[in-house]
Amino acid sequence: MMGSANASGANTVEPLNLGFSNFDLDGLTPVEGGGATTALGFKAAGIHAGFRADPDRLDFALIVADEPASTAAVFTTNVFCAPPVQVSRQHLDGVSYGTARAIAINSGIANAATGDVGLRNAERTTHIVGDAVGCPAEEVLVASTGVIGQHLSMEPFETGVPLAVAALSRDGSSSAARAIMTTDTHPKEFAVTFSGDGIGYDGCTFAVGGLSKGSGMIMPNMATMICVITTDAPVNPDVLHHALVYAVGHSFNKITVDSDTSTNDSCFVMSSGAAAGPHARPIELGTPAYDRFEQALAAVCGSLARTMAADGEGATRLLTVRVAGAASDADADAAARTVANSPLVKTAVYGHDANWGRIAAALGRSGATFDPLRVSIDIMGLPVCRKGLTVPFDEEEALRRFERPEIDLDVDLGAGDFKTLIWSCDFSHEYVTINGDYRT
Amino acid sequence: MMGSANASGANTVEPLNLGFSNFDLDGLTPVEGGGATTALGFKAAGIHAGFRADPDRLDFALIVADEPASTAAVFTTNVFCAPPVQVSRQHLDGVSYGTARAIAINSGIANAATGDVGLRNAERTTHIVGDAVGCPAEEVLVASTGVIGQHLSMEPFETGVPLAVAALSRDGSSSAARAIMTTDTHPKEFAVTFSGDGIGYDGCTFAVGGLSKGSGMIMPNMATMICVITTDAPVNPDVLHHALVYAVGHSFNKITVDSDTSTNDSCFVMSSGAAAGPHARPIELGTPAYDRFEQALAAVCGSLARTMAADGEGATRLLTVRVAGAASDADADAAARTVANSPLVKTAVYGHDANWGRIAAALGRSGATFDPLRVSIDIMGLPVCRKGLTVPFDEEEALRRFERPEIDLDVDLGAGDFKTLIWSCDFSHEYVTINGDYRT
Repeated sequence: MMGSANASGANTVEPLNLGFSNFDLDGLTPVEGGGATTALGFKAAGIHAGFRADPDRLDFALIVADEPASTAAVFTTNVFCAPPVQVSRQHLDGVSYGTARAIAINSGIANAATGDVGLRNAERTTHIVGDAVGCPAEEVLVASTGVIGQHLSMEPFETGVPLAVAALSRDGSSSAARAIMTTDTHPKEFAVTFSGDGIGYDGCTFAVGGLSKGSGMIMPNMATMICVITTDAPVNPDVLHHALVYAVGHSFNKITVDSDTSTNDSCFVMSSGAAAGPHARPIELGTPAYDRFEQALAAVCGSLARTMAADGEGATRLLTVRVAGAASDADADAAARTVANSPLVKTAVYGHDANWGRIAAALGRSGATFDPLRVSIDIMGLPVCRKGLTVPFDEEEALRRFERPEIDLDVDLGAGDFKTLIWSCDFSHEYVTINGDYRT
Repeated sequence: MMGSANASGANTVEPLNLGFSNFDLDGLTPVEGGGATTALGFKAAGIHAGFRADPDRLDFALIVADEPASTAAVFTTNVFCAPPVQVSRQHLDGVSYGTARAIAINSGIANAATGDVGLRNAERTTHIVGDAVGCPAEEVLVASTGVIGQHLSMEPFETGVPLAVAALSRDGSSSAARAIMTTDTHPKEFAVTFSGDGIGYDGCTFAVGGLSKGSGMIMPNMATMICVITTDAPVNPDVLHHALVYAVGHSFNKITVDSDTSTNDSCFVMSSGAAAGPHARPIELGTPAYDRFEQALAAVCGSLARTMAADGEGATRLLTVRVAGAASDADADAAARTVANSPLVKTAVYGHDANWGRIAAALGRSGATFDPLRVSIDIMGLPVCRKGLTVPFDEEEALRRFERPEIDLDVDLGAGDFKTLIWSCDFSHEYVTINGDYRT
């Protein structure tokens, strides 16, 4: 335990109270039970097709737009990108945005490290889905998650896809969300609406909603992230892609796991424009309507990402590291990410040890530029370091705060005006049994 | 399990057989039981001074040169460098090389995150040691390892340093090595000799030897690395520093733990020149004698580093990742390091799972440039991937090889001529209980 309480155990230093979020719900209305079918013009289904042995386990999801939809995607940056990612990229004209009609996702088999055979299987999947939906194969995007290195069996697609198409409904989002789970302990969905009043779409209410899978647990660090978002706001593919890149950068990319990205990570967004009326013009970059749309997309991604970061076997709580006062965006991100990634920090937190020395060491190796004598740190709102030195704190209060369901670490680097947050999760008890309680 | 064995289970693909090491013992002679007092002109001691409660636990080490010695050091790059590192840097004229007489190391308290009080305590330590040894405080270097954020008690120095000075001997290296251990499961020492014949020092035999502490286990990732090496070859401070930077870069910096460096990492080398005779000239850069000396220093550092990488509570085996065929040194290092750092790879290895998909994914996110279709991978000498595709292998043979005491992973990126190796360790059984056996 660090620091030494004064006689009264009182801590009279003001907390940093950083409290900012990566997304902002002002002007947005969360939709209870909302997901990928909240927006008009979309249906979804989740069924058991046979990729998994257990017949009660859903393993195939389909999200279909009533009409060809403006679509954008962000994929893994891993050099080894899996066949489904390669095929989806091709179908979006190689630039990550274009037109699509359906997104098909299987769980159980990742179809990764499967070479040319995997590529052919992913392409065949798009033909099977296209035939069943009634659209060209090029308008079908695919994603897979599960075991690496095993080949997809095509039979579950051949028998399951027609069943999924028959099951498509405006209520299918939650089944679809279940069907793509792997290490997730629960399905993940979120949706918001916003008004078009005063931003050029008077009388319209637009929805942005989605489903996702992926868990923030450190192990296994290849819990692939897949997300499908739909909107009935009218947005062209290039503008949609612009907003998605922003949203992903401020959400899924703010979760830290030991490894940045699996071979299969895929995030899709489709726009039907169905809530805008037949004569509405598409939302343009640089307009208040764009700003609101981007905010909504970031909120959906942010909410799903936060949920993912907290989830996973072996994790018990969300850990949020906020860094303010950084000299640049990159510094803020590096500092927060290094702290959030540090197993020592996470173990100390889990072990109810208000050990800011480990946080400091993580900051010190992050690459961020700052003067150690200007650093301030709070652990769960309790000041523990000011100007690089220990602040006496009430140890009993610290122990009480460690019981909270979420852990917040706040850092001010005193080096500038940039800030960010990174989500992570703590470790399981078993992990701590091995690694915790480290005193020389 | 990946791959599919053919009918005979035989694998006719040639293994990569990379087998290279980071250091080379040709022309060097390891010294049985050698350490920091193998070289002429040095004594050492390790005692219980009182930093640790247990009276049977040695906690203070002293390495002293008979005469002021040419000295060089490499320290942590962490922005938060601990007071002992700050003081040692100052005493080496701020440039990491100069003259020193004694190195004093305590374990139990790291004297890190201790601010000005810590700085004063570190300086005071150099005065206490200087007084007892009979040299200026500026010729004393210090290092500390242990708990962060707690202040050093000066009393153990005041009572212990004179005892340590009285205990100095030519046999004191192993006690000193014990006195600096924290999470180490055993003390670490190594020494070599080489002949000066034919390289300008005919008739001379030079020794390079040292002691170190630090463990390669992922947790806790702040197991500080401290190393003290001595030599009786005649080397001036700047040349000594040049050789040390090379040696550290190819040894301690080739170990991967979750975090690169603690706030206290320190590596020292002192040269007495005592084996060269009174009229010998110092070894110059760019000479065969320098090359041999640098090789010897790299071998001592390399051997100590390798031992550290394999050591630690919770680790059971050394993991060596070799990457060849990289487009640059940086690519080779990034690729090897990312694989060696990947918990999924390590878990798969420990779980006896010849899963090259995870190795590929680690390579793919490493930042190295290569064509996935030119990659080859061997697991313990068993080819599992050629040209980016699975190679059938004998699964029973794989299971047999997984019983080996050391695990080797070989990768050829097919992108160039650069190569390197990175040392890591696997995970404990308990860690695997949580995270292993992951199949969706």
